[in-house]
Amino acid sequence: MSEYTITVIKNENPKSKPASDELKFGKYFTDHMFIQDYNMEKGWHNARIIPYQPVALDPAAMIFHYGQTVFEGLKAYRTKDNEIQLFRPNKNMERLNRSNDRICIPPIDEEFAIKAIKHLVKIDSDWIPAAEGTSLYIRPFIIATEPYLGVNPSATYQFIVILSPVGAYYESGINPVKIAVENNYVRAVKGGTGEAKTAGNYASSLKAQEVVAKEGYAQVLWLDGLEKKYIEEVGSMNVFFKIDGKVITPQLNGSILEGVTRNSVIEMLKHWDIPVVERKISMQEIYNAYESGKLEEAFGSGTAAVISPIGELAWGEKKIYINNGETGELSHKLYDTLTGIQYGKVEDPFGWIVKVSN
Amino acid sequence: MSEYTITVIKNENPKSKPASDELKFGKYFTDHMFIQDYNMEKGWHNARIIPYQPVALDPAAMIFHYGQTVFEGLKAYRTKDNEIQLFRPNKNMERLNRSNDRICIPPIDEEFAIKAIKHLVKIDSDWIPAAEGTSLYIRPFIIATEPYLGVNPSATYQFIVILSPVGAYYESGINPVKIAVENNYVRAVKGGTGEAKTAGNYASSLKAQEVVAKEGYAQVLWLDGLEKKYIEEVGSMNVFFKIDGKVITPQLNGSILEGVTRNSVIEMLKHWDIPVVERKISMQEIYNAYESGKLEEAFGSGTAAVISPIGELAWGEKKIYINNGETGELSHKLYDTLTGIQYGKVEDPFGWIVKVSN
Repeated sequence: MSEYTITVIKNENPKSKPASDELKFGKYFTDHMFIQDYNMEKGWHNARIIPYQPVALDPAAMIFHYGQTVFEGLKAYRTKDNEIQLFRPNKNMERLNRSNDRICIPPIDEEFAIKAIKHLVKIDSDWIPAAEGTSLYIRPFIIATEPYLGVNPSATYQFIVILSPVGAYYESGINPVKIAVENNYVRAVKGGTGEAKTAGNYASSLKAQEVVAKEGYAQVLWLDGLEKKYIEEVGSMNVFFKIDGKVITPQLNGSILEGVTRNSVIEMLKHWDIPVVERKISMQEIYNAYESGKLEEAFGSGTAAVISPIGELAWGEKKIYINNGETGELSHKLYDTLTGIQYGKVEDPFGWIVKVSN
Repeated sequence: MSEYTITVIKNENPKSKPASDELKFGKYFTDHMFIQDYNMEKGWHNARIIPYQPVALDPAAMIFHYGQTVFEGLKAYRTKDNEIQLFRPNKNMERLNRSNDRICIPPIDEEFAIKAIKHLVKIDSDWIPAAEGTSLYIRPFIIATEPYLGVNPSATYQFIVILSPVGAYYESGINPVKIAVENNYVRAVKGGTGEAKTAGNYASSLKAQEVVAKEGYAQVLWLDGLEKKYIEEVGSMNVFFKIDGKVITPQLNGSILEGVTRNSVIEMLKHWDIPVVERKISMQEIYNAYESGKLEEAFGSGTAAVISPIGELAWGEKKIYINNGETGELSHKLYDTLTGIQYGKVEDPFGWIVKVSN
């Protein structure tokens, strides 16, 4: 990797920080941001931390027209001992480069990026809230900036990292949600961009989300785009089912995002000697398990919620009620252990924690 | 519709214009742009024509993260009598609103938008080149601007129109291209965003295009995402085949973009009493037609090229040679008539032309 050189311009006019109880998700942003430029001659260059400020782009910049962009999401946590730590940032940077490959964006230097993220988090560490369940959300993203309307990969890019202090996902403790199985809209299909963390996947999901929200559901559960039979993801999370003592999650197939929390749940279950399999799983199988009383738990996994228990699944006219609408024992244990590791309350036997303060 | 009020701020420092023979596609931009803002309280408001300038957005603006954006493409043509005219701009604005609906963007006022486009084109009319085959490309687009990282429709948007003088698509006359049938990557699937003109569809196409370009093919031909059997589009154009005297184009199915040129070709063929059908058509059927000597012509249709004849189709190991690699008679007639109408050389029996100069 290249030597770590980075320019820092401090913000002389820091903003006032929102109170812990005012925090939402992704609404407030800190005083600084990271930017790095790319062009053909220099590759990635001019890494800098500068005051948080607007990005000014030519209106013909390709990001505005052809969506050539990828992003990541991870968090910095403040421990009780006032240490700042990240959770598996290397997994996010590996995935960012896999997304880059799919969207024809030049790869970033993963080690450099982690150093830059730590540097930025350290500079804005006063922004990391301390209240239970709060954290600092980190959003790295890359945008195509060339002012050109041809449908081609851009010749220039910006890699940007912004930080947002976020409130506890569960205001009154971990709580199951109602999910609607989506039968009309499709999130992604094999050969498409479903396994990349790229803007278009999210734009395409808005309509389905809008429809089910009107019917009182928190998220949609996406089925495969080919047969609309097999389970893929729930909202923007991966999904797990506990059936007859075994945990099942859809196997990666090219259209499912490879979640860092998903991977952590699988590793943890293995560590606990709880049977876990990655395989194709149909909605019919879930319904059959429910009818035979073997569907014990269901939950989503993702960076924002960590574990999001599912209390009800609506599949067309059919309704599936899970664990009496209460959070299951395993869901609870996974949530407590994962957040425990993230906040430094529980020992990390996996080597997942990366300290920011050194 | 609302009254037409628009603020105009003239560019006091106009750029020098590129020579006609230096023009490419989407590389140069004129001196002015149109912008209109949207928020929940005011709806679309503050329509203005201002000097061409960078768009400055918060780095958390949703366009950078979730791709909530739609666009259009149309052209202004300079006739021999020095009149400026548009080709079916109402079709583009209707499609823009259909795209808006799919991507959860509030609808624009179509009539107002056409007036604004005419106004902008008139102000920058000196930029419309006069040389054979040149024109002024018009790019209306809408971007989500709310600085918020939740995956929701944005609360604010900007509707922008920029103009780009473009060279002749065919530098030495209309000329057939070699196309590769895409068997790995998928552009769109039913239930996805294929029929919307939105950024994600284009980002997802870059990889396939990159692969075939290395093998000497100009574009990919997209098959359906479900069975990879049925023909959808070619590159970013619609596609037509002439088999045994009849013209066939894939029927609109939710994953195919409804091209304005596609519609114009169908209308024109009907006007000429040439049989034309919109239906499902498989690659196998095309191959069979080729083997039995009945595949007479194939061509793409789109705003940029108008008609783009296909001389060769590579379908895995199989090669299909069409009309000895030469432009077919019908392709030529369609190209000449459509461009003839666009440039005012041929009478327009359809009412497609909208004059800018009045």
